[in-house]
Amino acid sequence: MTNSEKALQMHEEWNGKIETVAKSHVNSREDLAIAYTPGVAEPCKVIAENPEAAYKYTIKANTIAVVSDGSAVLGLGNIGAKAAMPVMEGKAVLFKEFGGVNAVPICLDTQDTEEIIKTVVNIAPAFGGINLEDISAPRCFEIEERLKKMLDIPVFHDDQHGTAIVVLAGIINALKVTGKKKETCRIVVNGAGSAGVAITKLLLTYGFPDITMCDINGIISKASPNLNWMQEKMTELTNLEGKTGTLADALKSADIFVGVSAPNIVTKEMVSSMNKDAILFAMANPVPEIMPDLAKEAGAKVVGTGRSDFPNQVNNVVAFPGIFKGALEGRAAQITEEMKLATAKAIAGLVPDEELNENNILPEAFDPRVADVVSRAVKELI
Amino acid sequence: MTNSEKALQMHEEWNGKIETVAKSHVNSREDLAIAYTPGVAEPCKVIAENPEAAYKYTIKANTIAVVSDGSAVLGLGNIGAKAAMPVMEGKAVLFKEFGGVNAVPICLDTQDTEEIIKTVVNIAPAFGGINLEDISAPRCFEIEERLKKMLDIPVFHDDQHGTAIVVLAGIINALKVTGKKKETCRIVVNGAGSAGVAITKLLLTYGFPDITMCDINGIISKASPNLNWMQEKMTELTNLEGKTGTLADALKSADIFVGVSAPNIVTKEMVSSMNKDAILFAMANPVPEIMPDLAKEAGAKVVGTGRSDFPNQVNNVVAFPGIFKGALEGRAAQITEEMKLATAKAIAGLVPDEELNENNILPEAFDPRVADVVSRAVKELI
Repeated sequence: MTNSEKALQMHEEWNGKIETVAKSHVNSREDLAIAYTPGVAEPCKVIAENPEAAYKYTIKANTIAVVSDGSAVLGLGNIGAKAAMPVMEGKAVLFKEFGGVNAVPICLDTQDTEEIIKTVVNIAPAFGGINLEDISAPRCFEIEERLKKMLDIPVFHDDQHGTAIVVLAGIINALKVTGKKKETCRIVVNGAGSAGVAITKLLLTYGFPDITMCDINGIISKASPNLNWMQEKMTELTNLEGKTGTLADALKSADIFVGVSAPNIVTKEMVSSMNKDAILFAMANPVPEIMPDLAKEAGAKVVGTGRSDFPNQVNNVVAFPGIFKGALEGRAAQITEEMKLATAKAIAGLVPDEELNENNILPEAFDPRVADVVSRAVKELI
Repeated sequence: MTNSEKALQMHEEWNGKIETVAKSHVNSREDLAIAYTPGVAEPCKVIAENPEAAYKYTIKANTIAVVSDGSAVLGLGNIGAKAAMPVMEGKAVLFKEFGGVNAVPICLDTQDTEEIIKTVVNIAPAFGGINLEDISAPRCFEIEERLKKMLDIPVFHDDQHGTAIVVLAGIINALKVTGKKKETCRIVVNGAGSAGVAITKLLLTYGFPDITMCDINGIISKASPNLNWMQEKMTELTNLEGKTGTLADALKSADIFVGVSAPNIVTKEMVSSMNKDAILFAMANPVPEIMPDLAKEAGAKVVGTGRSDFPNQVNNVVAFPGIFKGALEGRAAQITEEMKLATAKAIAGLVPDEELNENNILPEAFDPRVADVVSRAVKELI
């Protein structure tokens, strides 16, 4: 049986990858009178007087919604709400298994920005946080920004920030391995969707001075036509020299390549044209922008991908469960930029210097320390 | 410790009465590749081609949303979304514990009819059914009716139909105990909110010809001022003689009283004025319209209440878990009037004739047969 067949068979067997389970069992009239009427009126009355008490008496304390409109699901694209469910359920599984966070998949029967925002605001009272997922750019930027302003619970678009945090963690350690300094590094980010934009922003915040973004048309500059509003905004912060040209042009004398784009679009020649000891994060999935062995042959020192069968897997699962665990435990109102930086450093710190090498720059997804370390990093900043 | 104190303490201990639990555990890279990427893409692709497959591969098969706007919670009134959460979580517990149905509490930060409808439609793809709860009348009628038309999954307002079904079940058996015939019974329903209207409708559907509704101003007739649109509609179906007057006037020579109203508003004199072997369902909670011992002293034969410490408790929990269990297992698109009647008869049938007496007309909430019997009754009509 192929893995695809196995996945289909198992999904049928599970018939839903999560279930709701009662913490308050009702085996007698007395149980019923405490967990339901008439006893349940007591916490209701306390919360009616003081809404903050919802965190004491309800699932708001430890439950988030995983919200998608199904418009940008994995590499499958705009497959809609129902077809997005297996992914959102999977995400809910990971939140619980890795972070102990209860998560409810919510797939929306609308792709209208205003309706999405209104719907999420309307369902927010039950939840302690909102994880946005697989919503296409540039709508995802506006949806997240406006929800952050409207809600008093953390809102986090994992495709953007989860990815950005783990890439930054990998780069922090790759710099140590290669001896490169962030002040002099030239970075090329290929792909200007949600992940590419968020990675670029976080790397800028971390202090990398020289980042060039590319998309399918090559280098993005103020002169590029057909940019969306977010990409236009990024031209104020990146490619300050105003270069134009192809991805190959951008990569000449670059130190770091970050790809969230398409398979096999980086050649050995392009890697050879980069500075010595180049660092590549080739995260197109399942086929990376360049295969790690080819990149190494062309002189790359550190290569990361999205795949678990190569070294240095960039896997969001080391970030998002711990981030929400920390945010919920510390009752954060927001996931701030400082928290994202702290989280990246904490993840990087999980690989001790003596174990650090070009094939070991990121902790394993199954490293049992990860969620606690990440959640502590978040909580320290609340 | 009082029961109220105990309830508060336990709710703090539970810190949320339900949790989400993974059915697909992820203990290895292989697990992750099946439950999440890349394997998860397979069920996504199948559902994208055939949306019905969502029932095969996702929680839609066995999960409902328990939706409230917090506008009419228990006897507490309009306490809002967050304060309604303990009740909705309790309901979710009962769905799972009694019916094996996964249920997610969704409390809405809006009480606007249009926004409620839009929000429920938007979140529907993830769910196999919608249980509306504690939404005030008359908005609840419109919200339910319109959602039933817009969605292809069952929508059920339990305050209306759950209550109506159990009252009808009780009345079916009370008729047997008293020897009364439905064709000649005169019924008074006191309270014209969601439950009162739904009870009246279901009793009419069952075939009771003579029902008079009352509210705080007495008998409801076409001449009554300030009726809402649903109450006006009910004047076409009830009180066909056009009586006017007080509740006391209505009860003269009545056979059955159904109260979903206020404590202690029915006197012994009123009960004495009813026909011989009167049947009373005095369901104001926690203090009924008349206490059972007083009603009995005044000549009533069968008395039911909402309380577990008197005989004949009218408890929706014998209805709603089994109804959704059956609807989900049989993939019903609607909960029909026929299903409601069949459910009431099935519940009544759980008390065998030889055990039937004036103090035993309804099955116990904890009778383990109930959910299966109810779900079968629903499934037979799909």
